[in-house]
Amino acid sequence: MDSRVQFCTACGAGVEKKIPPGDDHRRYVCTVCGNIHYQNPKLVVGCIPEYQHRILLCKRDIEPRRGKWTLPAGFLENGETVREGAMRETYEEALVRVEIIAPFRLFDLAFVNQLYLMFRASILVPDFGPTPESSEVRLVLEEDIPWDDIAFPVIARTLRHYFSDRVKGQFSFQSLELSKSTSAIK
Amino acid sequence: MDSRVQFCTACGAGVEKKIPPGDDHRRYVCTVCGNIHYQNPKLVVGCIPEYQHRILLCKRDIEPRRGKWTLPAGFLENGETVREGAMRETYEEALVRVEIIAPFRLFDLAFVNQLYLMFRASILVPDFGPTPESSEVRLVLEEDIPWDDIAFPVIARTLRHYFSDRVKGQFSFQSLELSKSTSAIK
Repeated sequence: MDSRVQFCTACGAGVEKKIPPGDDHRRYVCTVCGNIHYQNPKLVVGCIPEYQHRILLCKRDIEPRRGKWTLPAGFLENGETVREGAMRETYEEALVRVEIIAPFRLFDLAFVNQLYLMFRASILVPDFGPTPESSEVRLVLEEDIPWDDIAFPVIARTLRHYFSDRVKGQFSFQSLELSKSTSAIK
Repeated sequence: MDSRVQFCTACGAGVEKKIPPGDDHRRYVCTVCGNIHYQNPKLVVGCIPEYQHRILLCKRDIEPRRGKWTLPAGFLENGETVREGAMRETYEEALVRVEIIAPFRLFDLAFVNQLYLMFRASILVPDFGPTPESSEVRLVLEEDIPWDDIAFPVIARTLRHYFSDRVKGQFSFQSLELSKSTSAIK
């Protein structure tokens, strides 16, 4: 999922895709000024907000997967730390303030040039509500997770790992890779 | 360290910086086609390659900090996992093959819109050498680390944490924030 570049951001001339001298990757290079437009993976940050053994889920009111349930998460912005990004996304999607506990899972989704970093988090005051991004926000027990209606495989995976660690009483950080095929498995 | 965008990558027209509807960040928005040019932090991946209690260091032969010592690390590329990126950078900078053990530290460098993910790694065969990026590559004992000539504060920090964990006989993953001021501290 390369974002297509057709014109140079520095001079507005056309670009071509080629390997610059001393490089080994094809890049979008300006045919006039030579500016190189690098493209790199994007980091999604989010959390698993817990309150009295319940997990906060958001029903997506935006595409893709409108109407499906997810954990709060979104692209890290310039100038913020991963914790700040996870807290901001959680507030934007569910109007709830969380306390970040620790990083829980880092998933490589190299097939879409994304990484997901999911934190464990606590809700101190269960004050939340719908937002432009979420038509509904709920605290749900493990047995009530709508497994068939989770928006993305990486979110279902995060939840399963979380419950699996929680029952053992020990959470450990892991960095894992999801392939296009494994990510289809809930 | 926002990369300045002056022209639209989709149509070549001029852009302006403004908050798009429904957004809360200023973005580069095309004045003609409305294309939004998002900018996000970049992830640097690298490792601490160890061989018989020695750490592999590279003497930079490129700017910035040419002539200073560093651990192999570089920007994650589209299409690769964080482990693949760390292994590739290590080979590019030191011509050495490493086995990645586990993620060790994730540093937020929000003030330059970067994150550093550093892995522990083993060198199986101590076969390495200089490259276009490194004028010299060496295996050094902790007592021989050239602390005054380490290229970047985040690298010095990684090494100090590594030796501190190693002496305890236990490595734990941590996600930490470096500020512009703390990053000046070795």
